[in-house]
Amino acid sequence: MRNLKMTLAYDGTLFHGWQVQPDQITVQGTVQSVLTEIDGPPVLVHGSGRTDAGVHALGQVVSFNLNNPIPAENLSRAMNHVLPDSIRVLHAAEAAPDFHARRSAVAKTYEYRIWRGEICAPFLSRYVYPHPYPLNEDSMKQAAPLFAGTHDFCSLGAAGGEEKQTTVRTIYSSQLQRDGDCLVYRVRGTGFLYRMVRNIVGTLLDVGRGNLKPEDVGQILKSKQRSEAGPTAPPRGLFLVEVEY
Amino acid sequence: MRNLKMTLAYDGTLFHGWQVQPDQITVQGTVQSVLTEIDGPPVLVHGSGRTDAGVHALGQVVSFNLNNPIPAENLSRAMNHVLPDSIRVLHAAEAAPDFHARRSAVAKTYEYRIWRGEICAPFLSRYVYPHPYPLNEDSMKQAAPLFAGTHDFCSLGAAGGEEKQTTVRTIYSSQLQRDGDCLVYRVRGTGFLYRMVRNIVGTLLDVGRGNLKPEDVGQILKSKQRSEAGPTAPPRGLFLVEVEY
Repeated sequence: MRNLKMTLAYDGTLFHGWQVQPDQITVQGTVQSVLTEIDGPPVLVHGSGRTDAGVHALGQVVSFNLNNPIPAENLSRAMNHVLPDSIRVLHAAEAAPDFHARRSAVAKTYEYRIWRGEICAPFLSRYVYPHPYPLNEDSMKQAAPLFAGTHDFCSLGAAGGEEKQTTVRTIYSSQLQRDGDCLVYRVRGTGFLYRMVRNIVGTLLDVGRGNLKPEDVGQILKSKQRSEAGPTAPPRGLFLVEVEY
Repeated sequence: MRNLKMTLAYDGTLFHGWQVQPDQITVQGTVQSVLTEIDGPPVLVHGSGRTDAGVHALGQVVSFNLNNPIPAENLSRAMNHVLPDSIRVLHAAEAAPDFHARRSAVAKTYEYRIWRGEICAPFLSRYVYPHPYPLNEDSMKQAAPLFAGTHDFCSLGAAGGEEKQTTVRTIYSSQLQRDGDCLVYRVRGTGFLYRMVRNIVGTLLDVGRGNLKPEDVGQILKSKQRSEAGPTAPPRGLFLVEVEY
């Protein structure tokens, strides 16, 4: 039995998230059914983590076992022929027998894009969160790095996102920057709780609106109360950018 | 009664084209129903021309009469609040009483994007025609300018696209260029027959495949036979870029 590693990009708009659910079209379900068609026996695909409905991926990593001896490059081409345009296989390769997309991951990077222009082009609107209202961006930029470090993040998410019982995670970097008409939040860490990135962005937006101050971030983390942090930002601005091993 | 001119951008993917059709969601129908809600009596919106299902616009121009005294800028903001994200009002202004989006138009520019990379990102696939197969791009670049000039274009389309009986049109410029992984066809002319731009692109693709030679373009135009030209290229790569008055 071979063990394969594959990198995927997808537009999450029309999927009910990553994870297989009965009677719903999901990314995992779509990829599994294409692989099962190629291999014969059902193929179980492990993702590096779940993404919610509407969340996109530039570099989701998956692993799976395969009986079929098809070379990895041909497999990738065959899959792109059959998969919908909204999912692309970017790369496929043999992996060590013990490689596991979720358990072997050592770091992940996410990006969240907030559109600050007055009018958001129809061609962008699935990939940014349009927010044309006043925001104190300097306060937001000050607040962003305060999420870095090793913390119990239970005020910003729930366990379950990555099937670990603890809510302690390490964020290596957390930065907010302008990129033209976009305000881009980029975060890299060991892993993230369920909805944690969107909850951080929602908290940063509350800082931008003046409902919270940058210096409140420390207290929010200490409180361990979800109610202390800001609301969950919409999924469409979020991209899983990279998974490191 | 005021006469207004408005510039729209839209993602044509999920619309059944521009023109109102019974029981179908169209761009014209969507814009008219929003304006009718604002104005009370039914508002008839004239577009510079129709776009087919799946065809996009960066600068479609429309005109319409309105009773409501709302300033143009506020109207544009109010409409963007109510319209789906796939349609945006880019600009609105008072127009001369005799201004008509279709009849007053003097030139139009379209762009068609062919994706030449091996893998087309999911975020682009609605806006380009992915064609990763061999094409002689030099032949295509030679053929493109041969469509310029005043010709009877009936081998490349049908009357009706702009409700003129004649199939004679003038193309001012017709160029194919590389833009990174895209092959971009840009055409500017007095007006275009039904599916004319997509039929020119389909003909250029046949030149790229070696089924036609650049020097066949003149004969195709002279033949006045639709069957002499190439097939209709898919809608998703086509954008109405600009309408001039």
